[in-house]
Amino acid sequence: MKAQIITIGEEILIGQIVDTNSAWIAENLNLLGISVDKIISISDKKEQIISTLQQTNQEADLVIITGGLGPTNDDITKQTLAEYFESEMVLSEEVLGDVKKIIGARGSQMLDLNVNQAMVPKNCKVLRNPKGTAPGMWFEKNNTVFISLPGVPFEMKAILQEEGFFEIQKKFKTPHILHKTIHTTGIPESQLAHILSDWENNLHKNINLAYLPSPGDIKLRLDILGENREEIEDILNKEIEKLFKIIPENIFGYNQDTLEGVVGELLLLNQLTLSTAESCTGGKIASLITSISGSSRYFKGSVVAYSNEVKNKILGVKEADLEEFGAVSEQVARQMAEGVRKLLNTDIGIATTGVAGPTGGTKDKPVGTVWIAVALKEQTFAIKYIFGNARNRNIIHSATSALNFLRNLLTKI
Amino acid sequence: MKAQIITIGEEILIGQIVDTNSAWIAENLNLLGISVDKIISISDKKEQIISTLQQTNQEADLVIITGGLGPTNDDITKQTLAEYFESEMVLSEEVLGDVKKIIGARGSQMLDLNVNQAMVPKNCKVLRNPKGTAPGMWFEKNNTVFISLPGVPFEMKAILQEEGFFEIQKKFKTPHILHKTIHTTGIPESQLAHILSDWENNLHKNINLAYLPSPGDIKLRLDILGENREEIEDILNKEIEKLFKIIPENIFGYNQDTLEGVVGELLLLNQLTLSTAESCTGGKIASLITSISGSSRYFKGSVVAYSNEVKNKILGVKEADLEEFGAVSEQVARQMAEGVRKLLNTDIGIATTGVAGPTGGTKDKPVGTVWIAVALKEQTFAIKYIFGNARNRNIIHSATSALNFLRNLLTKI
Repeated sequence: MKAQIITIGEEILIGQIVDTNSAWIAENLNLLGISVDKIISISDKKEQIISTLQQTNQEADLVIITGGLGPTNDDITKQTLAEYFESEMVLSEEVLGDVKKIIGARGSQMLDLNVNQAMVPKNCKVLRNPKGTAPGMWFEKNNTVFISLPGVPFEMKAILQEEGFFEIQKKFKTPHILHKTIHTTGIPESQLAHILSDWENNLHKNINLAYLPSPGDIKLRLDILGENREEIEDILNKEIEKLFKIIPENIFGYNQDTLEGVVGELLLLNQLTLSTAESCTGGKIASLITSISGSSRYFKGSVVAYSNEVKNKILGVKEADLEEFGAVSEQVARQMAEGVRKLLNTDIGIATTGVAGPTGGTKDKPVGTVWIAVALKEQTFAIKYIFGNARNRNIIHSATSALNFLRNLLTKI
Repeated sequence: MKAQIITIGEEILIGQIVDTNSAWIAENLNLLGISVDKIISISDKKEQIISTLQQTNQEADLVIITGGLGPTNDDITKQTLAEYFESEMVLSEEVLGDVKKIIGARGSQMLDLNVNQAMVPKNCKVLRNPKGTAPGMWFEKNNTVFISLPGVPFEMKAILQEEGFFEIQKKFKTPHILHKTIHTTGIPESQLAHILSDWENNLHKNINLAYLPSPGDIKLRLDILGENREEIEDILNKEIEKLFKIIPENIFGYNQDTLEGVVGELLLLNQLTLSTAESCTGGKIASLITSISGSSRYFKGSVVAYSNEVKNKILGVKEADLEEFGAVSEQVARQMAEGVRKLLNTDIGIATTGVAGPTGGTKDKPVGTVWIAVALKEQTFAIKYIFGNARNRNIIHSATSALNFLRNLLTKI
């Protein structure tokens, strides 16, 4: 079977945004064993939408359409879909309920254009949107399934993950397929590929491996296809065991795990509280930790110390050490970690101090130099990294390295 | 005139990479006044390439093709182009010279497959590649121009920037086009559309408006087309002036501006220093501010106060007020802002305290309730917001609202 993806909207055609939706949908359809043979971006003009729908109807078994469903006037997609699928618009009480709930939760007033979002073509099956006001819509015509979704990425993903993919799997029967994503941190992609080349070359023949790099989190995705579910599960687990033996300190989780989530669970498990003292990461570690719901059970707070004055006066870093060793030094990192642990009365203090760049580097301490320290009860541990030249990558690498440093200490308690 | 873009290669269709080439090409064609009405991603299968070329030949005046020109065997694009444009392959001495130079500069040996890269269809005009071994090729058929380029982004860009765009401008005479993006924050998209409906309905007929929402930053993009550059610039500016009068406090910048960058510039201009005291935003404000290079000139630090103990002991919030009014209250927000300003010895202190959710809401203070305070020298200002249910959206909305609240205060100094 063949799938195609249509994205609707001017913003892609004028190059204002990059179409990340299609890559996400294509990847997930491939994971279901459904291959995508064409992706088409068009404007929200009626004739072009209609002619593209006609063509995909001839070429594909499944068509996923994103975009053109927002509340504002520039969206004519829904009307055009109703026309193409020869249906009248009706009010969906189910969608209206969802819209009211979302608008209410935002503390906003229902407007006419919000009510309008509950109008759907009569012959579509609604796919509910748990994150926004535009519903997903499932149509069928001449043996092709069409699914129309809003273009806002987190809404589009929520609809597919909660209902869409399940309905697609039910409609189209596909072989068993298993996926596992392994999250690693602390080794750059090219170096990781080198370290893992033997393991990769000896992978079971039914396994496909993909590297999915993002700053601070290089993901390895293993896909395996087969007739017998237990058998392929067994093969997959054995390969992952082998991998773990090669890079035990760098694998921090699987599938939907996040580093900040894993660290949070370890803190809860060990009943330990945390604080952070951040210079070069500027609050990024605290921000990552507090992105997790319930983090107030183990996280008490942070001191972002962006000046030497704050490092000295608030965190108690000795002025003489700031002068002798400089702000970016092991001595200062250790004192920051110990200082924040004492100040905020926590079991653990994490500290970062470094040259985020792009300016401020010296011969001894080039841009990308970062000291990380963890004060864990009576002991303090410190480590030095040298990252690259890009400021925002240095910040995220420093933050994830600090969290992974703590994670490895916690797993050894 | 109409342009279309074709990208060739499996890696986009399986979601392994995001197609950033098309956005870049589209943006640059739009700057030349050439609008793109379709972007198509296909695999490197001969029949699909041919049928896509046929269709674009009927629909477009200019077709830009990227991908499928690498040195390895799996690329059949060039052969297929030769066939479609009814030409034989010949060795281009010019390209061979370029290839030898590139390979030599890399310190590599010329291989057969490198020589092969100098073979081009006889009836194409070569666009030289200053950065790689695969040349660009310009074809014409039935009044349509086709330009085939390698898929490696920096090679594709180099060919277009050094020769391609110039040749395109020479071939097609085009009208002037101007774009301006206006960044707004603090009003949800549907409400913004409602407030702006009169303005939108009365926009000059040559102007096209698009809403581009992202959390904390709803962008309005205005495009205008015309014969006379000054005239359309004037029309555009007048419409933006009208817009500004409707939502003066919500427009924080234009084009590439960011809220944290604009706030940073205002602080520098007024020679003011800043600190933050963050509860529900958990370090997000500090993290945004420090993402800007040079922020240490105005940002001294932050106290992330995730527990009442930290609010009281470090920031000096009165214990009695924490008990009487609760942590999420105007009184506590004000004392946090004043406390951090004093503690870190800055001109300004920003504070946030709220219920980020998804749990922790009460009847009086539902999830999404946030108090923001700004202590600016001797005066403290406070404002309350009620956002939605999604934790990470609440955090970003709280952070951007706090920065915009400060921005508005700074513009009135």
